[in-house]
Amino acid sequence: MNHIERIGVSLDKELLAAFDGLIGKRGYPSRSEAIRDLIRDQISTERLADPKAEAVATVFLVYEHHSTKLMGMLADLQHSHFLQVVSSMHIHLDKHNCLEVIVLRGPVGEINKTAEHIISLKGVRFGRINLLSTKTA
Amino acid sequence: MNHIERIGVSLDKELLAAFDGLIGKRGYPSRSEAIRDLIRDQISTERLADPKAEAVATVFLVYEHHSTKLMGMLADLQHSHFLQVVSSMHIHLDKHNCLEVIVLRGPVGEINKTAEHIISLKGVRFGRINLLSTKTA
Amino acid sequence: MNHIERIGVSLDKELLAAFDGLIGKRGYPSRSEAIRDLIRDQISTERLADPKAEAVATVFLVYEHHSTKLMGMLADLQHSHFLQVVSSMHIHLDKHNCLEVIVLRGPVGEINKTAEHIISLKGVRFGRINLLSTKTA
Amino acid sequence: MNHIERIGVSLDKELLAAFDGLIGKRGYPSRSEAIRDLIRDQISTERLADPKAEAVATVFLVYEHHSTKLMGMLADLQHSHFLQVVSSMHIHLDKHNCLEVIVLRGPVGEINKTAEHIISLKGVRFGRINLLSTKTA
Repeated sequence: MNHIERIGVSLDKELLAAFDGLIGKRGYPSRSEAIRDLIRDQISTERLADPKAEAVATVFLVYEHHSTKLMGMLADLQHSHFLQVVSSMHIHLDKHNCLEVIVLRGPVGEINKTAEHIISLKGVRFGRINLLSTKTA
Repeated sequence: MNHIERIGVSLDKELLAAFDGLIGKRGYPSRSEAIRDLIRDQISTERLADPKAEAVATVFLVYEHHSTKLMGMLADLQHSHFLQVVSSMHIHLDKHNCLEVIVLRGPVGEINKTAEHIISLKGVRFGRINLLSTKTA
Repeated sequence: MNHIERIGVSLDKELLAAFDGLIGKRGYPSRSEAIRDLIRDQISTERLADPKAEAVATVFLVYEHHSTKLMGMLADLQHSHFLQVVSSMHIHLDKHNCLEVIVLRGPVGEINKTAEHIISLKGVRFGRINLLSTKTA
Repeated sequence: MNHIERIGVSLDKELLAAFDGLIGKRGYPSRSEAIRDLIRDQISTERLADPKAEAVATVFLVYEHHSTKLMGMLADLQHSHFLQVVSSMHIHLDKHNCLEVIVLRGPVGEINKTAEHIISLKGVRFGRINLLSTKTA
């Protein structure tokens, strides 16, 4: 466990009242917890601007379940030299569509390239990438 | 399978060349596939602006593995009247941190409220929500 | 000027070091100033989720300079019952294109509807909307 | 004026109906115009990922009107070797706050660095950057 430091932040009364309202609505147990979340988000976003930064990502796909190319692509990914497929989860959405969530680790640039390629496949109807710097984790 | 329609799109030569370059780089098999993806994204984004729209979402969390409150919260979610927890996936990231991916279905407003509440819990270091309109899927 | 309050925030050493690195790079004069910016951003984003919230917006357009419909639309805007056109700025980009920045005030929902309509006009090549809650300002 | 090309796009009936609904609501005069806007947006976003890409940007700031450092910073900008200040617009928001919109041209990386530095100044309460690839314009 890390050593904890305590810093002081000055802000005007009105801004503090608005912040207290927001964190109360979201259910934060303390101002510190809410401010730590804001700081972590900012740091993660900054780090991810570097294509070489190590990241963990979820790729969230909706595709037609006959999409055999996707199956092949996902199998190939297991042998990538740049990316590690940590895990994946398959969900039956409706008669025609499946949802796949794939968790990848590796450099940001490689994750984006691979995810964009998966999303471009015929039969993949929707895709989103979420990245997180592993250093913030 | 749906009935397929064919529409014509006019665009200037320079824009078309830039588009062909982009879709070649991403690996799209055809312009139609790339344009369908752009259209689906736009429609999904539009629909999700309505808090009552039905959506499927992945909530992507990094948390300290002793975070007992998160465990309780996730258990409570199973009994929510508004949301259906479709599936969840747990990954051991490192000595201190776990990654959890939760797939939810329900109205956008309820998904956002619940996800914000989960992210606000002590011990949850990072959280992101991805939403998709189920009508686009 | 508002009354200033001082709050304490506890965070682990490693997170603080990363934050100090980030704010040093951006040139922030103090941690307080950086944290206030994060808080204001969050509050503004939250408020803007309500279509009735009062906002100030910049609409940033690139258009072909012959686009007479845009000229008419911008003139009509001056008579809108819902929106106030505070100011606008016109820039000659190149032989074919102009950039227009329009500053609007009014409810978020009306601003979005109007801006989307302007962006949809023939001859408007690119458009972006930036919103800010006037209450945070 | 550029030479116009015409391409065919196939999409299923249901997706086309949803798209027609969306573009009708936004006021697009034709499907072609709406699809061109989607394509231009995508190309601009792609190009702006390269820090060396030439861009035009609006920086949108709210600041306390006594903020003398901002005035100095904006004056210094006029002498930047990397960026061109095309124009700026100043608006009186209320008793305490002003809004400044600055239009810059130059490489994306330099624009971001400069804009982040301006936003970090004491007295600047809110800032947003909008970028557009000049090649798309």
